[in-house]
Amino acid sequence: MSKTRVVIAGYGNVGRGVRQALAKTEDMELVGIVSRTPDRVKKEVGDAIPVLPIADTAAWVAAFRPDVTILCGGSKQDLPQQGPELVQSVCTVDSFDNHSQMPEHFHAMDAAAKASGKVAVIATGWDPGIFSLERTLANAFLGVRAYGFYGMTEKGGLSMGHSDALRTIEGVQDARQYTHAIPEAVEQVRRGENPDFKPGDMHTRECFIVAKPGADLEKIRKTVVEMPGYFAPYKTTIHFVTQEELNSKCAGFPHDGLVIASGTTGEVHHSASVEYHCRWGSNPEATASVLVAHARAAARLFKAGRSGAFTSLDIPPAYLSPLSQEELLAHWM
Amino acid sequence: MSKTRVVIAGYGNVGRGVRQALAKTEDMELVGIVSRTPDRVKKEVGDAIPVLPIADTAAWVAAFRPDVTILCGGSKQDLPQQGPELVQSVCTVDSFDNHSQMPEHFHAMDAAAKASGKVAVIATGWDPGIFSLERTLANAFLGVRAYGFYGMTEKGGLSMGHSDALRTIEGVQDARQYTHAIPEAVEQVRRGENPDFKPGDMHTRECFIVAKPGADLEKIRKTVVEMPGYFAPYKTTIHFVTQEELNSKCAGFPHDGLVIASGTTGEVHHSASVEYHCRWGSNPEATASVLVAHARAAARLFKAGRSGAFTSLDIPPAYLSPLSQEELLAHWM
Repeated sequence: MSKTRVVIAGYGNVGRGVRQALAKTEDMELVGIVSRTPDRVKKEVGDAIPVLPIADTAAWVAAFRPDVTILCGGSKQDLPQQGPELVQSVCTVDSFDNHSQMPEHFHAMDAAAKASGKVAVIATGWDPGIFSLERTLANAFLGVRAYGFYGMTEKGGLSMGHSDALRTIEGVQDARQYTHAIPEAVEQVRRGENPDFKPGDMHTRECFIVAKPGADLEKIRKTVVEMPGYFAPYKTTIHFVTQEELNSKCAGFPHDGLVIASGTTGEVHHSASVEYHCRWGSNPEATASVLVAHARAAARLFKAGRSGAFTSLDIPPAYLSPLSQEELLAHWM
Repeated sequence: MSKTRVVIAGYGNVGRGVRQALAKTEDMELVGIVSRTPDRVKKEVGDAIPVLPIADTAAWVAAFRPDVTILCGGSKQDLPQQGPELVQSVCTVDSFDNHSQMPEHFHAMDAAAKASGKVAVIATGWDPGIFSLERTLANAFLGVRAYGFYGMTEKGGLSMGHSDALRTIEGVQDARQYTHAIPEAVEQVRRGENPDFKPGDMHTRECFIVAKPGADLEKIRKTVVEMPGYFAPYKTTIHFVTQEELNSKCAGFPHDGLVIASGTTGEVHHSASVEYHCRWGSNPEATASVLVAHARAAARLFKAGRSGAFTSLDIPPAYLSPLSQEELLAHWM
């Protein structure tokens, strides 16, 4: 059986993770990388993998003949523009994660993919993606809402978005933000209280900040805790550290999350609850692993004659698995 | 929009749970019950729900016009015979749970359903069913095996099969068996050791037995702990209790389970693990809730022109949800 030919579009942390995840599969192969900065990528990956400029779509599609292209760009700038363009030529998988723009992205990708006869798997990774699936299943089985908590581990979950927000503040040289779930809030959900939380009720935020020499620390602190949306609604702790401390204490991209739903079954209200907890030493590599499984599904959907946009909710789970139907029936049911 | 018309076939604990779960839905309605003992069922449910003999298939199909029939019989005797017969006339959903006979049941149902143009959703509930899905997803994302533990709670999980096995022993009047996960085994999996467990390494078994007057307790004890498959491989504890104690201490059907997989991502092996834990105050009602969601999916598959057998792995998760695609995109992704 020939392997599924995969191209990586965009080579940052997620793109690197996809390359490593593909290397562990037996049914898929990386046939090329496309990038806005191919020279930078060539320097990093060497001669083993061909790299072409992403703008020359016709050229790299002809050269690489991908079954699926995994879009590893960001949700703010890259995907809304790149996605509808590229799906005119190739099947795509993306990790679009702007929850409030989900319908728009779906419909833009769906229209473009239906017009070209291609498949666009959108918004996959662990959240959205796996968590969307777990929330929807919990609701389908228990008829209740599902809650998402992040940072259940002692260290907490590193939020790239909040770290970036800290780095925009005047006087900040570098920063990392860890999100922590509030244990009592988790327990409230576990007890089946189905509370109406405000954002600050579920999580706290812990910031490690390297200030520039001579910066006004009190002004930085005030700017952080008052930043609307990002920090203002939350109990926020700030640690000023040196760059060396940040580099050693805050290395890597750990993250974790919990989907939890608690309800009852039957007329006498027997308790019923489900919890899905994932812990990742590397958040971008976790996203990459889920993207690669969905690339497998995209290729299968296309082979089955399907076109248009699909989320994780629209894909039969067996399509994600490298195992055959007979193997799944015999050993995984 | 007209409601999905559902018939319950077989009215024991799971059938009762299905009736109660259907009452909580807005898109489905119970139109009738069929049973081998319709008089017994009529006495229990009164006039609110029509009850007909299951053997007169043509009569109840004409009377009830079901979109889906939920088969609530047992996996040993009922489903292998009933399933392929009934799916000649109606779309079915079952909770077949004999893991070793899964391929046979799938192929028997698939052939019969394809011949009649109906849909047969098989082997759903929380295990197999949700757990099959969670095992398969964990493997698709992390490339490792997934482990199943049962009885993580203090009380443990009530095993009907093992309770039944105890009641077959000479001198036993009544009995309940609770399964307990071995915490150290769970920790081994959490640490990513991917151990090769023998059955007795993962669980212990706790039996509450009411002996008949004058029975030889030591003989009962020996028969239990030496029973092949059921108890011999496990550390087994036995409590002899009175019927009153059993009735008060061992009421209901609590159960719970954990799917857990632990691996790594990337070249430097960042830790990566997922855990899915469900806790049910009533095991048969939990199974019923999952069956009802899959009945929704069966009706949708049939409307979409599909036929044949489907497991939880073959169904797009959105098909299980009462929510519309737009609602899912806007609020559940």
